[in-house]
Amino acid sequence: MTDPTYKIVELVGTSEKSISDAIDNAIKKAAQSIRHLGWFEVGQVRGSIADGKVGRYQVTIKAGFTLEGDTGAG
Amino acid sequence: MTDPTYKIVELVGTSEKSISDAIDNAIKKAAQSIRHLGWFEVGQVRGSIADGKVGRYQVTIKAGFTLEGDTGAG
Amino acid sequence: MTDPTYKIVELVGTSEKSISDAIDNAIKKAAQSIRHLGWFEVGQVRGSIADGKVGRYQVTIKAGFTLEGDTGAG
Amino acid sequence: MTDPTYKIVELVGTSEKSISDAIDNAIKKAAQSIRHLGWFEVGQVRGSIADGKVGRYQVTIKAGFTLEGDTGAG
Amino acid sequence: MTDPTYKIVELVGTSEKSISDAIDNAIKKAAQSIRHLGWFEVGQVRGSIADGKVGRYQVTIKAGFTLEGDTGAG
Amino acid sequence: MTDPTYKIVELVGTSEKSISDAIDNAIKKAAQSIRHLGWFEVGQVRGSIADGKVGRYQVTIKAGFTLEGDTGAG
Amino acid sequence: MTDPTYKIVELVGTSEKSISDAIDNAIKKAAQSIRHLGWFEVGQVRGSIADGKVGRYQVTIKAGFTLEGDTGAG
Amino acid sequence: MTDPTYKIVELVGTSEKSISDAIDNAIKKAAQSIRHLGWFEVGQVRGSIADGKVGRYQVTIKAGFTLEGDTGAG
Amino acid sequence: MTDPTYKIVELVGTSEKSISDAIDNAIKKAAQSIRHLGWFEVGQVRGSIADGKVGRYQVTIKAGFTLEGDTGAG
Amino acid sequence: MTDPTYKIVELVGTSEKSISDAIDNAIKKAAQSIRHLGWFEVGQVRGSIADGKVGRYQVTIKAGFTLEGDTGAG
Amino acid sequence: MTDPTYKIVELVGTSEKSISDAIDNAIKKAAQSIRHLGWFEVGQVRGSIADGKVGRYQVTIKAGFTLEGDTGAG
Amino acid sequence: MTDPTYKIVELVGTSEKSISDAIDNAIKKAAQSIRHLGWFEVGQVRGSIADGKVGRYQVTIKAGFTLEGDTGAG
Repeated sequence: MTDPTYKIVELVGTSEKSISDAIDNAIKKAAQSIRHLGWFEVGQVRGSIADGKVGRYQVTIKAGFTLEGDTGAG
Repeated sequence: MTDPTYKIVELVGTSEKSISDAIDNAIKKAAQSIRHLGWFEVGQVRGSIADGKVGRYQVTIKAGFTLEGDTGAG
Repeated sequence: MTDPTYKIVELVGTSEKSISDAIDNAIKKAAQSIRHLGWFEVGQVRGSIADGKVGRYQVTIKAGFTLEGDTGAG
Repeated sequence: MTDPTYKIVELVGTSEKSISDAIDNAIKKAAQSIRHLGWFEVGQVRGSIADGKVGRYQVTIKAGFTLEGDTGAG
Repeated sequence: MTDPTYKIVELVGTSEKSISDAIDNAIKKAAQSIRHLGWFEVGQVRGSIADGKVGRYQVTIKAGFTLEGDTGAG
Repeated sequence: MTDPTYKIVELVGTSEKSISDAIDNAIKKAAQSIRHLGWFEVGQVRGSIADGKVGRYQVTIKAGFTLEGDTGAG
Repeated sequence: MTDPTYKIVELVGTSEKSISDAIDNAIKKAAQSIRHLGWFEVGQVRGSIADGKVGRYQVTIKAGFTLEGDTGAG
Repeated sequence: MTDPTYKIVELVGTSEKSISDAIDNAIKKAAQSIRHLGWFEVGQVRGSIADGKVGRYQVTIKAGFTLEGDTGAG
Repeated sequence: MTDPTYKIVELVGTSEKSISDAIDNAIKKAAQSIRHLGWFEVGQVRGSIADGKVGRYQVTIKAGFTLEGDTGAG
Repeated sequence: MTDPTYKIVELVGTSEKSISDAIDNAIKKAAQSIRHLGWFEVGQVRGSIADGKVGRYQVTIKAGFTLEGDTGAG
Repeated sequence: MTDPTYKIVELVGTSEKSISDAIDNAIKKAAQSIRHLGWFEVGQVRGSIADGKVGRYQVTIKAGFTLEGDTGAG
Repeated sequence: MTDPTYKIVELVGTSEKSISDAIDNAIKKAAQSIRHLGWFEVGQVRGSIADGKVGRYQVTIKAGFTLEGDTGAG
């Protein structure tokens, strides 16, 4: 059996509600076009401020997925 | 039109409830005296432990705001 | 009175619910065997992905506690 | 209205003239195939040396763009 | 003679022209209200993208200045 | 002649044998679908542990390749 | 009772004697105008060299203080 | 079922042969007293030099293991 | 002869006097229960502020020691 | 044919004009005494402030060059 | 007896075979002109890609050596 | 008048007494062979442990000096 190779994509999920919701949004979006997503890492957490409170969380994540035999890494 | 300049202040928001609530508290506090707050970045997330569970979240953020024409940067 | 010394342990808490819940789980687990836990710092936030959404948050924390007079640091 | 998700790509722009020109070249190249580019961040700045002076600047940037409803994140 | 103490402020200068121009803009703005500015350090270099090219450079700098005898550090 | 632009992809290569073999595996996999790969940088080195010894090395690399005239950066 | 918010200021203390003395100088200076200083963190330690030995230590610190109810964060 | 908590220990493995062998040595040593080791991360790679060549590799790793129900985290 | 393996523990030493004294306190405390301590590295230097001056230095160190043949790494 | 070894030197170039000019100055100076300079990396960008504007850019670079067969690495 | 002082040089070793071989090559090269080399630390690990596989590993190391009484540090 | 260029050397000073004394030792040693030393930055602070207390501080510093017109940068 061969050793698996994974590719990592970097995304920014956003949410008006919470950091966790922003992460969820990014992963759900990615899952629409990427099969075999396996894990994520949270990078920078930022956000906009509107009317003196958090407007929208912007959470950068890296998500990894298995490259299949005939799928390009590009 | 002139190029805007922003100033960044560093704050620690705290909350017994959640990380997000600590961020909100810091931004609301800052908004009491700073106009034109535009964005924030989350730095270190720490907290106290009491009775074997999280006592209070302490979240360091940097918040940026527009410097107005006649407002000091100091 | 002597100057206190603290020891730091590194843990990974996990939760299917939220980042905060993963932190809570790690601290509660540590508190079962460590007395005098005083503070924590959040390190890396990662997680597994299952069925196109967050499977389980994995949050690395460092937790500090007071070393008692006759307690080993090892 | 839904929360937008962004994807980040990492590029190295080059130029014999200046750091800014290298950034411009990378962004123009990316814009040939990516719609909705919104922002960039500069990472490492390197370059080759030829004949005792800067040969070519090599500037690593990350560029973010909006993922459209039916566009893959892969 | 006493040992001088310096205070550091963090600013984001912007420019449509160049990174250097963004730095200049931030320092000129700061100099309108801060006396005795002595040095700066460049942090993050970011920017917006518009019409497939750099829209506006956003350069974060820290600028240091001498605290005078009767001037507040706050 | 124009200034070349490069794109960087992030991969995780794995191997039961060695760190170098994990790197090789990632690059060979990437080369199946990316032309003009030019260089790589090693990031994080991790691995699984099984039966009290290294199970499988997991090596994160970034690999850079030349963007051709009519090839998308997406 | 409300959750406290803290502000952080960044200072460079200097001393011809020692690193600790430079830290002390910065904190004493800050305390002339800031009430409720609570903690500090040491950042970069630099210094000038004169006559083949340390001329003056320059120690960057961040100092945190409690924001009072009616005190501005700016 | 409960959410697992992991503990991380930091070790330095050494070897006269190779980096991989140093990692193996550290993990084998840890496995003599820790059950349920699951993963490792490589930190700093250093070594001694003797007779103009590598004397002994010194590789810092962090290794994670599952905390059992009644096992202390200390 | 076998290759030695070392374990690293993380401690916070404190002192009202100086950074060096805080380091000494942590190492002396650790030496009460750990044999074969060999080296240390200084991490974060923090401290409390009381009455407008340094209250107590808090210095995080990592200390390494040789694991003996029959001593657990846990 | 043997594998080449490179040495890296760290320099600070300065210029009143621009960051790029400061880099150029450092490389031209280095090229007066080092043959076979091949590449550079930009580190910290700092500068002095005079009369409320940038006085002189100070750009730290690392420059690499090929070690020749009989040339010392010291 | 006096306290020893060490100097650190930064080198890039290369090899077509392995990371360890690249480190060995750099140290052997340095040892041709530097006496009293004592230790090394590995920095960045990069490499070229040729024909879809690793062309040549390029490993940056810092190597430390004892400064003798009458030997220059320059 | 021309723009000055500086060279940076990296040294490890040691002392049985204090961190400051280790820095002093490194600078005094460097000053024996380098003219025009201007500044230093402190990097890593480590040390050996002997008999359950600090044996010898090892402080890594970078020291910068002015390159003269006819002095090599190598």
